[in-house]
Amino acid sequence: MTTKTDIASRVYNHTWKLDPIIRSLIDTDFYKLLMLQMIWKLYPDVDATFSVINRTKSVRLAEVIDEKELRDQLDHARTVQLSKKEMIWLAGNSFYGKAQIFEPEFLAWLANYRLPEYELSKKDGQYELTFHGRWVDTTMWEIPALAIVNELRSRAALKSLGPFTLDVLYARAKAKMWEKVERLRQLPGLRISDFGTRRRHSFLWQRWCVEALKEGIGQRFTGTSNVLLAMDSDLEAVGTNAHELPMVLAALASSDQQLRAAPYQVLKDWNRLYGGNLLIVLPDAFGTASFLRDAPEWVADWTGFRPDSAPPIEGGEKIVAWWKKMGRDPREKLLIFSDGLDVDAIVETYKHFEGRVRMSFGWGTNLTNDFAGCAPRELQGLNPISIVCKVSEANGRPAVKLSDNPMKATGEPSEVDRYLRVFGQEDRVEQAVFV
Amino acid sequence: MTTKTDIASRVYNHTWKLDPIIRSLIDTDFYKLLMLQMIWKLYPDVDATFSVINRTKSVRLAEVIDEKELRDQLDHARTVQLSKKEMIWLAGNSFYGKAQIFEPEFLAWLANYRLPEYELSKKDGQYELTFHGRWVDTTMWEIPALAIVNELRSRAALKSLGPFTLDVLYARAKAKMWEKVERLRQLPGLRISDFGTRRRHSFLWQRWCVEALKEGIGQRFTGTSNVLLAMDSDLEAVGTNAHELPMVLAALASSDQQLRAAPYQVLKDWNRLYGGNLLIVLPDAFGTASFLRDAPEWVADWTGFRPDSAPPIEGGEKIVAWWKKMGRDPREKLLIFSDGLDVDAIVETYKHFEGRVRMSFGWGTNLTNDFAGCAPRELQGLNPISIVCKVSEANGRPAVKLSDNPMKATGEPSEVDRYLRVFGQEDRVEQAVFV
Repeated sequence: MTTKTDIASRVYNHTWKLDPIIRSLIDTDFYKLLMLQMIWKLYPDVDATFSVINRTKSVRLAEVIDEKELRDQLDHARTVQLSKKEMIWLAGNSFYGKAQIFEPEFLAWLANYRLPEYELSKKDGQYELTFHGRWVDTTMWEIPALAIVNELRSRAALKSLGPFTLDVLYARAKAKMWEKVERLRQLPGLRISDFGTRRRHSFLWQRWCVEALKEGIGQRFTGTSNVLLAMDSDLEAVGTNAHELPMVLAALASSDQQLRAAPYQVLKDWNRLYGGNLLIVLPDAFGTASFLRDAPEWVADWTGFRPDSAPPIEGGEKIVAWWKKMGRDPREKLLIFSDGLDVDAIVETYKHFEGRVRMSFGWGTNLTNDFAGCAPRELQGLNPISIVCKVSEANGRPAVKLSDNPMKATGEPSEVDRYLRVFGQEDRVEQAVFV
Repeated sequence: MTTKTDIASRVYNHTWKLDPIIRSLIDTDFYKLLMLQMIWKLYPDVDATFSVINRTKSVRLAEVIDEKELRDQLDHARTVQLSKKEMIWLAGNSFYGKAQIFEPEFLAWLANYRLPEYELSKKDGQYELTFHGRWVDTTMWEIPALAIVNELRSRAALKSLGPFTLDVLYARAKAKMWEKVERLRQLPGLRISDFGTRRRHSFLWQRWCVEALKEGIGQRFTGTSNVLLAMDSDLEAVGTNAHELPMVLAALASSDQQLRAAPYQVLKDWNRLYGGNLLIVLPDAFGTASFLRDAPEWVADWTGFRPDSAPPIEGGEKIVAWWKKMGRDPREKLLIFSDGLDVDAIVETYKHFEGRVRMSFGWGTNLTNDFAGCAPRELQGLNPISIVCKVSEANGRPAVKLSDNPMKATGEPSEVDRYLRVFGQEDRVEQAVFV
């Protein structure tokens, strides 16, 4: 049928105003929904500003991505609401083995939710993309904003390629991905999920990767953080919580003492809503060493930790040591590794901890956006960048993240200094950040 | 991109063992699920045999459809089970404005349901396709069996056509369909649904027609009987009950008196499970005239009637007259027309009853399988046939349908005679049956 062209499709295509990147509000990370319910319940009146930050300054995004295209995509995302089928699925599916994790009142509120306004300007070759408003509204921009910027950048990079070149590009990317699948298949007890929504090459490519993992590694593939893909592919939706929780609570603290208590207040709040396998500690917002040093006894009863900025083996060992010190058996505990992983690090970490602690891997950008070596000629625009969407203010007060890696710190310098004074500098090690 | 062929897709296509027609257990009519729950609850131990009957004897199906293809499709349908997403949707969606219409215990049973065995042989150029077993198992074959036979017949008819001819065929069918849409759009108070799953040209064509109606007539389109399409397109799933209920209960009757009571016993059973807009009487299993003559007072309290074999205006008028006789205001009652309708009959019936009674149309075969005049040369194989899948025995006793149209009667001649003696012959009018 090579001489037959489907005219209706062709005309539909060439008159396209927009190929929307965000077509569903649940095309987002599952943890956003869990956090959203907590914010809606406990902090409905808090204001929070989120800002997109491109840490890869060498990539001048405002020169790569057309401003009108960006606005069109952001505007389109603001029109999207939950569909009836999505509502029913959120209400009826069980997550982490628990039914009705979302309260009916929360879902009723969510049914009318739309993404709030955005502010967009250009500065020094970068976009300044900011979301002001109630935390409960602005928080949901994180993932779609990042997915839009990343996919528009991919599209811009691919614009110059002809059909054969594009075909070869995806062929190579698929072959490359399958090599990874074959290596992971050799780890019998592996548990790995897709965490790659935010910095994916594109939605369709993420879906390909997720379905490839489902076919390729079977039971080792424990789910996806992408709620839409989880629904459509009958996979587990996975993820728990993120740095924005301690960052906002820390920003709201009115004294150094309250600031020091903020990371544990988050855990108490979380435990009011969730239990079981959702009790995962994210310890590094203001440095893991200080977190462990000051942690109350009950933190050791939680199911696991997600070290997110220290090197995985080093960071994991510190947590294992702390569990032992607290009299807990690490073999009953869970470490979730999720920071900039690729297959080498996964294999190495898996082998290092095998039999000593339960492990799970959240595989992000190197799963859903690894096109290195795939383009027939080098295309810088396909290399992923280190871009985040972070809370920058809460109720008008600056928010700070210290991290275990100073390269991942955010916030105003004077506030960063205050936080360093309160939490200390212990064990913070600078490492290059690629994604 | 006309010179580029997607090799993986092409190879996947040319190595296809099967393009499955039934890919989901909810690719069926909604009324089957409502009836199934009633059978599961009230008649779990009754045996019922269903048989596919091609009333269009001139079409020798066994010479048109390859037996191996038919067996492959039937075998594939038997592998299909409810997916998690479908389960959640059935549990969580509201139907006819009512939440949790399906009991959790019923859904738990349905989660493990598979279509039971079939028996297939050939006789006089026709297939004899029969399903023996518990009613609660065999009943679910009705729609997939019919959809499979009908779609295999379409595929056989299209095998000889080249790509351009196929393209023009569907172009004409779409244009033809759109003419209907434009005529229906002119009826402001119209309420019409898709009832065309069983005798559709193909699943993909039914989906096209349903989505065309959604875009084309908006609020006038009140849903689809196809549960899968309802879920996927956020439409209402519609339908209530069918002849198999009175037919089985009549077959189980051990005296003429019980036989006479069977049509009302069905309504009592139904009312134990369902209410409101699901209280629709299907009066013609053994003749509408006798049904109305012997009906208890409370039948007039039901929401509406679905006359299914008399000509719509004539049949509708008799029911309207009966409501008046019973002291009910027809303007508060509903007539659902669903027998072999096309646009002419819909428009005529709508105009006839406008303002006098509430109306709703269930549009079947002429919606989803009307290719008359669309093929570049005449293709008999695209004309729909009158094929049904009817209950033929219950607990070893023969089942009978009289209908208002003797051409639609089924059952052994001696039993038909007995039923005619019990229910009478009043108002039965022979009419040609096309679909």
